[in-house]
Amino acid sequence: MRPSGREPNQMRAVTIERNVAMKAEGSCLVSFGNTKVLVTASVETSLPGWLRGKGQGWVTAEYGMLPRATGSRTRREATAGKQSGRTQEIQRLIGRSLRAIVDLQLLGENQITIDCDVLEADGGTRTASITGAYVALADAIAWMDERKLTKGKALRDSVAAVSCGIYRGAPVLDLDYLEDVEAHTDANFVMTGTGKFVEIQGTAEQAPFSRDELDALMALAEQGIGELSLLQQTALSA
Amino acid sequence: MRPSGREPNQMRAVTIERNVAMKAEGSCLVSFGNTKVLVTASVETSLPGWLRGKGQGWVTAEYGMLPRATGSRTRREATAGKQSGRTQEIQRLIGRSLRAIVDLQLLGENQITIDCDVLEADGGTRTASITGAYVALADAIAWMDERKLTKGKALRDSVAAVSCGIYRGAPVLDLDYLEDVEAHTDANFVMTGTGKFVEIQGTAEQAPFSRDELDALMALAEQGIGELSLLQQTALSA
Amino acid sequence: MRPSGREPNQMRAVTIERNVAMKAEGSCLVSFGNTKVLVTASVETSLPGWLRGKGQGWVTAEYGMLPRATGSRTRREATAGKQSGRTQEIQRLIGRSLRAIVDLQLLGENQITIDCDVLEADGGTRTASITGAYVALADAIAWMDERKLTKGKALRDSVAAVSCGIYRGAPVLDLDYLEDVEAHTDANFVMTGTGKFVEIQGTAEQAPFSRDELDALMALAEQGIGELSLLQQTALSA
Amino acid sequence: MRPSGREPNQMRAVTIERNVAMKAEGSCLVSFGNTKVLVTASVETSLPGWLRGKGQGWVTAEYGMLPRATGSRTRREATAGKQSGRTQEIQRLIGRSLRAIVDLQLLGENQITIDCDVLEADGGTRTASITGAYVALADAIAWMDERKLTKGKALRDSVAAVSCGIYRGAPVLDLDYLEDVEAHTDANFVMTGTGKFVEIQGTAEQAPFSRDELDALMALAEQGIGELSLLQQTALSA
Amino acid sequence: MRPSGREPNQMRAVTIERNVAMKAEGSCLVSFGNTKVLVTASVETSLPGWLRGKGQGWVTAEYGMLPRATGSRTRREATAGKQSGRTQEIQRLIGRSLRAIVDLQLLGENQITIDCDVLEADGGTRTASITGAYVALADAIAWMDERKLTKGKALRDSVAAVSCGIYRGAPVLDLDYLEDVEAHTDANFVMTGTGKFVEIQGTAEQAPFSRDELDALMALAEQGIGELSLLQQTALSA
Amino acid sequence: MRPSGREPNQMRAVTIERNVAMKAEGSCLVSFGNTKVLVTASVETSLPGWLRGKGQGWVTAEYGMLPRATGSRTRREATAGKQSGRTQEIQRLIGRSLRAIVDLQLLGENQITIDCDVLEADGGTRTASITGAYVALADAIAWMDERKLTKGKALRDSVAAVSCGIYRGAPVLDLDYLEDVEAHTDANFVMTGTGKFVEIQGTAEQAPFSRDELDALMALAEQGIGELSLLQQTALSA
Repeated sequence: MRPSGREPNQMRAVTIERNVAMKAEGSCLVSFGNTKVLVTASVETSLPGWLRGKGQGWVTAEYGMLPRATGSRTRREATAGKQSGRTQEIQRLIGRSLRAIVDLQLLGENQITIDCDVLEADGGTRTASITGAYVALADAIAWMDERKLTKGKALRDSVAAVSCGIYRGAPVLDLDYLEDVEAHTDANFVMTGTGKFVEIQGTAEQAPFSRDELDALMALAEQGIGELSLLQQTALSA
Repeated sequence: MRPSGREPNQMRAVTIERNVAMKAEGSCLVSFGNTKVLVTASVETSLPGWLRGKGQGWVTAEYGMLPRATGSRTRREATAGKQSGRTQEIQRLIGRSLRAIVDLQLLGENQITIDCDVLEADGGTRTASITGAYVALADAIAWMDERKLTKGKALRDSVAAVSCGIYRGAPVLDLDYLEDVEAHTDANFVMTGTGKFVEIQGTAEQAPFSRDELDALMALAEQGIGELSLLQQTALSA
Repeated sequence: MRPSGREPNQMRAVTIERNVAMKAEGSCLVSFGNTKVLVTASVETSLPGWLRGKGQGWVTAEYGMLPRATGSRTRREATAGKQSGRTQEIQRLIGRSLRAIVDLQLLGENQITIDCDVLEADGGTRTASITGAYVALADAIAWMDERKLTKGKALRDSVAAVSCGIYRGAPVLDLDYLEDVEAHTDANFVMTGTGKFVEIQGTAEQAPFSRDELDALMALAEQGIGELSLLQQTALSA
Repeated sequence: MRPSGREPNQMRAVTIERNVAMKAEGSCLVSFGNTKVLVTASVETSLPGWLRGKGQGWVTAEYGMLPRATGSRTRREATAGKQSGRTQEIQRLIGRSLRAIVDLQLLGENQITIDCDVLEADGGTRTASITGAYVALADAIAWMDERKLTKGKALRDSVAAVSCGIYRGAPVLDLDYLEDVEAHTDANFVMTGTGKFVEIQGTAEQAPFSRDELDALMALAEQGIGELSLLQQTALSA
Repeated sequence: MRPSGREPNQMRAVTIERNVAMKAEGSCLVSFGNTKVLVTASVETSLPGWLRGKGQGWVTAEYGMLPRATGSRTRREATAGKQSGRTQEIQRLIGRSLRAIVDLQLLGENQITIDCDVLEADGGTRTASITGAYVALADAIAWMDERKLTKGKALRDSVAAVSCGIYRGAPVLDLDYLEDVEAHTDANFVMTGTGKFVEIQGTAEQAPFSRDELDALMALAEQGIGELSLLQQTALSA
Repeated sequence: MRPSGREPNQMRAVTIERNVAMKAEGSCLVSFGNTKVLVTASVETSLPGWLRGKGQGWVTAEYGMLPRATGSRTRREATAGKQSGRTQEIQRLIGRSLRAIVDLQLLGENQITIDCDVLEADGGTRTASITGAYVALADAIAWMDERKLTKGKALRDSVAAVSCGIYRGAPVLDLDYLEDVEAHTDANFVMTGTGKFVEIQGTAEQAPFSRDELDALMALAEQGIGELSLLQQTALSA
């Protein structure tokens, strides 16, 4: 029995509200239940030095969490003077996930920076970030298309992410915070709208897991990503 | 003529929405026109080492801006590895402003940390932060009162803030970004609900200003703070 | 009764000794009573990248305090690895105050850096710094004039600063350390030789202050700045 | 055809030389072909503050690379002033992998720190690090057992790691640097001696990968880990 | 021929002015010609954690240079965010030199921190610092003696320092900046009042030096230190 | 009697194994008894900005110690976020020592970076580093010569280093860790193959030392360096 009363293969209510940031070229507020992430996509028509002159663009991401997104206040990273290892891992993951579905040559010599800032954290902040990031990215690329900044259809596919885990012995989809803390195994899946894998990260929190357990998690993930892909399409066609 | 078409003594639409952060002891989303700040108040029933054993509590504040709160993307301070001088000035100002209306002895040995995170910036982020911070603080102290953590009525007054400036030769109230950039003089006023000054900061951006100009700005500020104090009361009694 | 026996409107003995740093283009040792600040002005005939090619120059300032300028030793900021928020606030104030009286176009593409290093601290280090900085700046600009580095009379006015406060209920001029610690309200005024305001910073340390109190502080400041302006002129004509 | 002439399912020559660091409680030099990592395990009979008094111990890891382990010199992280995101990801992975096979309660209130320093890098430094770390850890725990510092058999299983990838369309085992640079998909598997998963990290470097490709990589990994587990046993029984 | 017209074995004019810092337990302004260093000694009746409970005290030193002590402005270390390698070398040398003549047991559990801040730099800032530091230290220990903070005569000897070098082929005493830049060999000697060595640092700036050259430099140093020791005694008995 | 049973003028067994790092242009593993240092020389055919266009090259060095090179684990500098003062002193010394025997003009506009990483520390890590660095440097310059990157014979001499000290009243050569901890005086000598001094650093750890003691240490050093120079020649001619 899950704390939220959900079925093992039931995702939380997911909503994606577009164009929430007045100044960004793309943006959305994405919620996976009580987890809320504000995502913006910023287009810069120039590149950092090491990328210039290669005839391609770049997509990168940064991740942050407001100090009181969490149950007790978390120290602000700007005060601490550095990003934690966890933050860096997450923002590298978001960036890689997006680049896997973008044709960087067709972006032209432009950079898109995705900022994912967690307003409320209740588990799954990285998967919500990736899922929302795709929507903000799609809007930013559309904005570029209108201004003839791209050289063709740079977006090759869509991408979304979901977590799964073994909670009290059973495989469950889309862990919330209470489940995440207790789960023996925690896996994040990033997949395309066409059903291929972009990234798999499975971690045994306490006891190692078997191939059968992994297969069960993958099946849940495939279903969840399918649902998320539809929600993304719906949001983008609104 | 102001870019927004406002009268010289007309504030932007100000809204204060309480309890927007599920986990914080006090919170609000405050808007001064297109400037939007998410404010949380976090109660900790312990104090940093240097404050312990003095029979009093503490109120402190931190300030941040999401990278794309601004027209072009601003570098994330957590990535830069430090808070800018501007950020530090603002968060020190917010903290001082709040402590001026709190009886620290009556707080008990507890600390309240106010986080002001700017979601959208269109001028006046520090004054909106202070105005919202009072509301979040009041809710956090009420939360403490209910749990008998305070030793009496710790809140002595209310506090709000507004900016004024000389724009194209005329004194105007509550500068937005377009006005702020161009204003010859920019002043921030922090005042209590009972009409006293907590902080005045007046700066000649280009040409020094006269005593008459300063007096005109003060008159505008007194009016604006009066309006903000009413809005705070209304929000807190809702 | 003030600890020093001064009248409420009596400044401490102020001295300005020019050309104390052999190598700097301008320099002075300024004393406000026991507060002593060594000020140097350094001319560089180049600009940082972000200022180049705009047909103007720049004036900036840095502030520091020797570790034993204070009653008990203060940690050296170079050891701590960063400047404190207080230091940054002060050096930003000094820079703004000087830029308000300089025509940056007439400076040519040159930068003047003012260094204010406190040798002894007894209250009012920022006001002494600004007052001395003007003298060092004037000497540096004269040095540039002689070498045809400027494009005209870049110095538009003089500038000086003084603090005032409410000490034991009475408004007093030029707070020393003992008064500063105890004052309920503390205000710093930066004004030009022609009597206009460049910056006002008034802070309620404990209880908010009234408009009448503020007016009394302003009157004291105007008197004090008048005296400082004369001392600056005298020093520069010596 | 692989650059090294290896078969798709052929690992590089792997060697594990124990007790190479005179002072460490456990150590080895592990080579996966031309990749060489010096691993030490350091036992400390105390814990960092946040771990004390919980009746358990801790295993943690740090990772570094000598500047000229790589084809062109890499900047030393101690000079850069921080560890890169990549370094942090790797050392967090090593730590998690080891903790998955240790009973922290039985360790007593002791900490074991594993240092993995890459002397030569030719691909697979993180998998070689984990494989060698198990051997150094086992020796350190044996050292503790002899001194009655543990409370029972703290080592529950063995752990090893290997990378696999899709190189020129074919799944191959144990990527070297030339393959790693070119591979479309790169996956790292951490598994126990009893054949369970501790961690899976699969990343699409360019094109997303299919479930069939993932299954093929898993099969290779299972074989490779089997071989590594035997080598670990042999080394430890020598 | 030396740029200053001095004889090879002639020191610059050396002056030591005591009690220049109102608040420090010991202080002096030491000049070696145009090199001027402000030295303070601060007594703290407590020790850093790692020194506590060992029944002894500590003497440590910090060194800094005002940005415009040099011909062109040097970047402020507090702004750079760290002390340079040169600064650290010098302050470690000063600390070691002083500890060599202090009986740390007799100091009691107290710490003396020496701050050497260079107001003007014309070569020999580290040797002037050590020479002045002894005087400030002696005053601080006398201050402690009066307050019964020491457990006996903690000062075992005096200490002073001087530089020598091979300038245009000839050994010379007490290099100034012009000589220092050009000298082929540069050596710093720290010696006690009783003629023993505390530290020797000889460096070939371009060509290696012979034993004969080293002997000549030592002879000069012995003479110079003798003169400095007398000046220290005179200053302290004034 | 020395802890190792060595004669006062007896060095530890010294070995130099060349070409231990596959990718470096020069490298060796140097051992002074149980002290082992891995040295690499990296040739870059470009220079840092401040060195460009001066018609010369550069030789620089970095030094590090693996965390468990020492008896108890030392904190990794990359984790601490900075190099210690000791590390900086040592790497500056290594760089100076090598530059003293290189004709920088004949190097062409190329930079050689020497990395000295201590695998095991038992006293004398800086002297072993310098001694090995010469060998790696010689190989790197030979590599450059073959590729016509140099403009002539850039290596003017050889260089080696050894420590001496007063241990239990007697001058001894090549201190190991046990002797180093206890020695009253510790001196490091860097000398050329032709018997000239490059650097002398003598430090009184507790009691100041006399001229006679210094002379005795120098005699030991001259002998030791002679032996090291022969070993370097032998290694390079192998």
